[in-house]
Formats: sequence, structure tokens, C-alpha cells
Amino acid sequence: MPRRPQTMELPSIGALDRSAGQLGRQLTQALRDAIRSGALKPGEPLPSTRHLAKSLGLARGTASEAFEQLIAEGFLEAHSRAGTRVATTLTDLRPARARAGKRVETAAPPRLSQAATTIANVSRQFAPLPPIPFAVSVPTGPAAPDDVWRRLGNRIRARGPGAPSGYDDPHGVPVLREAIADYVRRSRSVRCSADQVVVTTGTQQGLYIACQVLLDPSDTAWVEDPAYRGITGILESMGRKDRMISVPVDHAGIDVDAGIAMAKHARAAFVTPSHQYPLGVPMSMGRRSALLAWARSNDAWIVEDDYDSELRYSGHPFPSLQGLAPDRVVYLGTFSKILFPSLRLGYAIVPDALVPAFCGGRNLIDRHSPSADQHVLAAFIAEGHLERHIRRIRGVYADRREQLIAMLARWIPKELGWLQPSDQGMHLMLWLAKDINDELAALRALESGVAVRAVSPMYSPGNGQPGLILGLGGFSNEQMEAAVRQLAAVLMTVRKRKPLASQRVSKNPLNGSLSRR
Amino acid sequence: MPRRPQTMELPSIGALDRSAGQLGRQLTQALRDAIRSGALKPGEPLPSTRHLAKSLGLARGTASEAFEQLIAEGFLEAHSRAGTRVATTLTDLRPARARAGKRVETAAPPRLSQAATTIANVSRQFAPLPPIPFAVSVPTGPAAPDDVWRRLGNRIRARGPGAPSGYDDPHGVPVLREAIADYVRRSRSVRCSADQVVVTTGTQQGLYIACQVLLDPSDTAWVEDPAYRGITGILESMGRKDRMISVPVDHAGIDVDAGIAMAKHARAAFVTPSHQYPLGVPMSMGRRSALLAWARSNDAWIVEDDYDSELRYSGHPFPSLQGLAPDRVVYLGTFSKILFPSLRLGYAIVPDALVPAFCGGRNLIDRHSPSADQHVLAAFIAEGHLERHIRRIRGVYADRREQLIAMLARWIPKELGWLQPSDQGMHLMLWLAKDINDELAALRALESGVAVRAVSPMYSPGNGQPGLILGLGGFSNEQMEAAVRQLAAVLMTVRKRKPLASQRVSKNPLNGSLSRR
Repeated sequence: MPRRPQTMELPSIGALDRSAGQLGRQLTQALRDAIRSGALKPGEPLPSTRHLAKSLGLARGTASEAFEQLIAEGFLEAHSRAGTRVATTLTDLRPARARAGKRVETAAPPRLSQAATTIANVSRQFAPLPPIPFAVSVPTGPAAPDDVWRRLGNRIRARGPGAPSGYDDPHGVPVLREAIADYVRRSRSVRCSADQVVVTTGTQQGLYIACQVLLDPSDTAWVEDPAYRGITGILESMGRKDRMISVPVDHAGIDVDAGIAMAKHARAAFVTPSHQYPLGVPMSMGRRSALLAWARSNDAWIVEDDYDSELRYSGHPFPSLQGLAPDRVVYLGTFSKILFPSLRLGYAIVPDALVPAFCGGRNLIDRHSPSADQHVLAAFIAEGHLERHIRRIRGVYADRREQLIAMLARWIPKELGWLQPSDQGMHLMLWLAKDINDELAALRALESGVAVRAVSPMYSPGNGQPGLILGLGGFSNEQMEAAVRQLAAVLMTVRKRKPLASQRVSKNPLNGSLSRR
Repeated sequence: MPRRPQTMELPSIGALDRSAGQLGRQLTQALRDAIRSGALKPGEPLPSTRHLAKSLGLARGTASEAFEQLIAEGFLEAHSRAGTRVATTLTDLRPARARAGKRVETAAPPRLSQAATTIANVSRQFAPLPPIPFAVSVPTGPAAPDDVWRRLGNRIRARGPGAPSGYDDPHGVPVLREAIADYVRRSRSVRCSADQVVVTTGTQQGLYIACQVLLDPSDTAWVEDPAYRGITGILESMGRKDRMISVPVDHAGIDVDAGIAMAKHARAAFVTPSHQYPLGVPMSMGRRSALLAWARSNDAWIVEDDYDSELRYSGHPFPSLQGLAPDRVVYLGTFSKILFPSLRLGYAIVPDALVPAFCGGRNLIDRHSPSADQHVLAAFIAEGHLERHIRRIRGVYADRREQLIAMLARWIPKELGWLQPSDQGMHLMLWLAKDINDELAALRALESGVAVRAVSPMYSPGNGQPGLILGLGGFSNEQMEAAVRQLAAVLMTVRKRKPLASQRVSKNPLNGSLSRR
């Protein structure tokens, strides 16, 4: 077959840019593109390197190198007699519709799995909020860890085990596990050794690994109703929605008798005993012991999400469930809230029998947490900085909390919203009047610069109550007050039309609520 | 009912330690322990605070505070007339066997799920190796990122977006996504926008999210045979072992025709085209186009694990599969190998349609990567340090690789082990004689201070070939040579008894191999 130098009359080859240099690489890419686009077809012969080099004004060696590279990549084939051709082993690389002469962009998009759709939808419901009032846990001003954290980090990263290194143990670095075990024994009555500590990236990963490890395909699990969307989202994304039992929460925490009536033989219960999320109530001692008795008699696990337990504003905190039954409870803690979320470090305290599976789960998901930060945190705890930081921000949060409670009382008409009593944590729970759509309110609030989270989607279908979660933290009193006033205006706007009394409120919201106080 | 002060004759109460201070807290804890242990039983009355304080030599207020705390916790109940009692709502907190008078430690351990057992077992097979030759990717000496990394980190963490902050977007910080998109477009012919980049903690998490997102319960997936244990481990841990199709790999990569014959309608193929793991061969262009053609005609996804692609020692690297079919390919990259594993940062480049699901999957697993490191890495790439680092270590690795190849030729008798040809990557693949048990060899090697990974467990059952993976990197020539000699000795020890010729080798291993060279 004769050589066909005219195949080089391709627009893509004409585009070599002499000023950009690397002409050989440009030529290689241009030939690749021509083959991919179908301008050069499988089996088609190429000009000789001599001919090609001459026509493009290149050194012959440059053309030869391009050919050699494309032969190595399998785009071209060298035939001793027939010269170089586009490889005949190449299946046409263009999408089917492009081959049929249609535009590539109009090709039917690949089908998504059900899982992809579920995961995208679920996750949207607990996407992060922007760092404006009342996003939870925004560390600025006195709520942020001070320069000690940064200086310690610079020192520890410089050398030793904090410096760049190879793959680490999924279990977590030993010095951090020791520091965490000490800390939770002292502050949370958790009974554990450092071997039972598995370092995580935070509560979310702890919950994920617990679901992965504790549940077989046919097992059911209790969750609270309402619940943290992080845990119900995981179970839904794993295709376990039908085996997720939403057990009602009342003023004393999860209703264990109701859970037993609904699904006695569940394999695990996911609970937030210190400070129920989202309602903020602690689980009573009676409920704690009933829950443990159920777990023992049914050979079930309890997963205790002890988020925010450091921030109790009156009395000592409740002791952990784990301390009452270390063989039955997986205890989850995090430094995201108390230090800063962007750190991504937390921990699971697990019964000895579960340690290999938790480490294995971590290894499969993402191997381990960045080592340098683990060493920095270990030093931060061991040198006493963490407990000093907690004492400091407990005061900061207590003060902001009181301020926010007063502002809400002042600006939110009490028939529109009222607070759930609670004495702990980084958020307040504002119940809303039944005729307010809390999701719509959250959306409108965000549009006007206020970040709140709606509570109703945290309930099982049909049981939703309207309410909003307001985070405390990195906001000044001025920011909070402006946001509360804005929120009050939003609530009145989204409230459904009501006869007389309510309409008067919405006509003059701020005065109305002031006079009502 | 009369008060029974004798209930206070409990050993735990006698143990109050005056020198330690916080007597109120000690008393609270002692009472809690007495209730938990059953020494104080539900409904049992307590002495008055006056009586108790007197008998313990405490201020009455201290005893009152302890009672109030325990009432708040639900351990005690206050009755206006009958005084304070242990709460009757408390179910007995002791494990059943302890109640029956047996030792707590002998209680039957909770039953583990099948999942827990599977995960622990699977994970053991790709647990990290200690940082001794020939662990993969140990960054020391000239292979470690230099002081630029540390100084840049200190600067970026000090202020701005690198400082401690709140929850971030699971997608990854925009400046890092831009830097990654630029980098992969330039170096790997990947076609993408920054919106298609999802920051991960490395390839392992990229694979995990891909499995989570791409596959519905009944879907099958192709994996390579042999394969990276990270991917087959994920699928096994998800209960998908029966729907995992192990497609043979030959000198040209995965055998697409074999895959089609085995499971044409698979939903995804997980491949390592640049440098097959563990064999080290690149996928030929013919196979690449056949794989893409299959994916298009069957509406399947391809997951391209492009680990080690930066380290090609001759010619340009192959272009990525992603660049040939951006709508069908999920491209996974990592900075673990090229920078350092303890950093835990990588990326997935995904088709637009999959972006929400990948971000959602990340959000459910662990929300996002630590923000500070993302900003440091973004600056490291944007300021050109990454590409300088890659150029530098490419030379370092090429040199060490040549040295190691020479050492292996010198010390390993060629009938015991021979190298798989390859021109890329951070490891060499040493095939072993059929009569050597590679798992036993790896175990014995580790006992004698040499870390290698056996290849046979990476094959589907029954197809295993014995071989060892030897990582390059943070080891001096002296370390490598000593380790190779040790490895040669180990191989001769574990080899099964053979007639004559082989026995002569094992009698005088080093001379034997020297003379054979």
C-alpha cells in the first residue's frame, strides 16, 4: 500500500506551536488526538518520519521519537516493509454516537446506580453550612485553639515521628491512643486501655465503621427518632433503610420499651446519651440501665455517640454508658467540636473483641489518619493544653449561650418559636409553631445570611416536628443579634397565613415580640 | 422505713483519699460504683446527708452536692418523706453472670458479626509493613520532601484558610482541586475541570467510594487477577465476594475478551493500566481500547487506579484511560507515593454525573480531609515544588532500582527467583520458583528484618503464583544489599527439599549464586 502523506493534512497537526517548544511532544499529542477522534483510522498508514519531519519543518529525530512513543503506547504499529500504521488492534475509540456522525456531547449519559442517587440525596441533608451564624462549631476568636496549637505543630512536624513518613498503623499512633485513653478515663468515666482506642477522623467515621463492622446484611439496628442524619444517612446509603428501626425519644432519651416492642432482636442501638442530637436532652439513668439490660439479654451492641459531652454547663457530666458496660458499648468521641472541625481527628473506644475489626474497617476505608496531626494532638493533650482549652471555651460557650437565649426570647415571638430546655452542648434547639415549614424557613434564612438546620427531616417519615438547630461558637454578640432578628423576620414570612392574631404579629414583628416579652 | 446508716460501711466509701482533694467528687464516684456493683440495690435507702457527712468527716454541703448530682444522673431518687434512695427505675447494672455470683471476666463474650470477622481477616492481608527494606514508599533521605514542605506548612497554617476552621466541603478545598486538575491535565492527559476533582485521603478511599457509589447490590464488577488486595478486600468486606469477577492479567494487562466471556454485563471494571499491581506491566493500547469499547456498549464504568504513574523511567508515560473516555472513567490518583504516605491526600477525577454521589459518599464516610494540609499541598503544587520533587525522586528511584536489580541478580540464584520486566514504579516484582511458599517466605523474611509482600494471596483462589513485591525508596544501597542477602538466605531455607542440584545451592547459597552470575 502506498504511503499517503496527505493524511498529515490534519488540522491538529497544523496547530504545532513553535513558540511553546517541546515540538516532539506536541506532535505526539496531535497524532494521538487524530487517532482518538477518528481522523486517523485503525490500519491507516502514516508518512515516513523523513517525509513528516520535512513537511512540518522538524528534525527527523523528533518525528522518530514521536513514532516510537506512540508505538510503545500501542497507538501505532511498525511494519518492517509497510512502514508505520495506526494500530489495527485499536477498537474505534470514539463513543458510538460520534461514530455515527453525531456530536459527542449528545451521547446518552451513563446510567447511575440506585446507590449513587441515594448517597447524593442523603448527603445533601447534612452538607456543611457556611461559617455564618448559626453554623455549629465555627472556631474563631476566643473559641479557636490559640497559638499554642500552631507552635506545637511547627515543632512536632519538624522532626521525629511527626515528620513525613510511610504508611502507619490503622489503629492510630500509640502516643495519641495513650493520651486519649487517659483523657476519657479521667473526664468521662470510660473504662479502657490504649489498645481499645482506635483513632478515627471524627464521629462520622466512627459511626461508619461501626455500621460496617457490627451489622450483617439481615441485622436490624435501632436509631433515635429524631436522629443525627449522619447515622441514618449511613444506614440508608448501605441499603439498610428497611432494617433501621426509629425508636422515639422523649424527655428521658430513647424509649427503650418502645424499642423492644418494635424490634427486640435488633443487633445494635445507636444513641446519643449525654445530649440527644438534635433535642439536647440527656438520657436518664433509668433508661441507661434499661438499654444496657436489653443489650445484655439480646446480645446486642450499643454505639454511644458522646459528642459535645465536654460542654455541660451545670453539675458534673453524666458518666458514659461505656463505663457501665465496657464489653457492650462502642464509645465514639471527637475533637472536631472541642478543638476545630477542620482537624478531622476523633476516636472509637471499642471492646477488645472488636479491635481487629475496627482497625480492619479503617484500613479498608482509608488506611489511617495523617500521622503528623496525630502526634501534634497527642502532645497537645499530654501537655495539658486540651483541658485548659476546654475550661476556657466552656466559659465562652456558656456566656454566648446565655446571650443567645436572651436574644431569642427578645426577638422571636413565643408563639412562633420556643427553646427546648437543655444544659449542654454547642447548639440550641428552637421548636417552631406547627404551621411553619422548617425546611423552607432554613432555606429562606440561608438566603438572607443565616445558617440554621431544620429538624423535621431528622424524624422518621410522618413523625417530623418543625424546629431549627442554632449553633453557638465563633460569633460575636453583634453577629448573633443581627442574625436572630433576621431569623425572626424569616419565620414570620414563611408562616402560613393565619387569622388575625398571627397576622398582627407578622405586620410588626419586632415590636410585636418586644412587647410580648 | 428507718434510715440504715450501716449501708455506708462500704469499702468503696472508706477509700476517700483526703490528700487527693475533690472529696465531693470522690464521694459521688464511690456511690456510683457501689450502685453499679450491686453493693447498693435499687430502692435501698441512704443515710441523711447530715449523718453521712458526719460519719465521713465531710462538710454537709459536700454530701448534699454529691446526692444532687446522683439524683440528676438518675442513680438516686429523692422522696420528700422517706429521704434519698437508690433509684427504683434502675435495672440491675451488673452483667447476668456477675448477678449470679460469678466473676464478670468469665461472662460469655458478645457474638461478633460475620462482617467483623471478614473485615479483620481481609485487612490483615494488607496491613502496613514496618519501615525496613523492602517496604514500599518509605520517604527518607533524598526520597523525602525537603524542608520546603515543612516551611510552607508552617507559613500556611499560621493564618488564612490554612488556620483552624469549621466543617469544610467534602468536595475538597477549591484551590487544591484547581491545582490537581492542572497537574493531571498536564502530566497525565486527563481531561477534566476542577469541579470533577474530589479530594480523597488516597487511592484506598477513592476505591472505597467508587464501590459504594457505582455498584448496586446485584451488580458484578471485574477486578484484575492478580489484584491489589485493597480493592478485592473492599468488595469482600461489602459482602460482594460472589459478584466479584477476577479477570486474568497477561503481559498486556487485563484480558478483556476473557472478562467478556466471564461476565459481559458487569457494571464496573477496576484496573491499574499504567503499571499493573502487582505485576508491573502496562496495559497495551489495544487492550485499552477494547476495555473502553466494552464499557461503552455495556454501560459500565471503568475505575482507573493510576498509582505510581509519575515514576516511568523510559519514554513518556502512557496517557490515561480517562483522557480517552472522560465520561466512563473514574480516575484515581494519590500523593501518598510521590510525596509521603503519612500525608493521606489523594484525588478522584469523576464524570460530572457522578460528582454529587462521590462528594456524598465522602461526606458519609468522614466528611472531608483536614483542611490545613489541603491548603499546604495546593501551595506546594502551585509553586512548582511538586514537579521539582518528582523530577528529583525519579532520578533517585531510577538509580536505586538499577542498584536493586543488580543486587538481586547477584545474590538471588536465578532458579529461585527472577524479575518481572517493568520500566515503572516504586516496586519490583520477584517471581519465585513454584516450590517456594511465598507467604512463608515473607513471614520468615520479616522475622529476619526484611519486609516483603507475598503475591500469591493477590490471585483468585487456586490461581496463585509465588512471588514477592520489593519496594524501593528510603533505603541506602548498604541497607538494600544486606536485605537482599538476607532474603536469598530465607528463600533457600523455605524452599522445599529438592534433589541434588537445588541442594547444592542451599548448602552454599551465596557462593552458589555468585558463581552462577
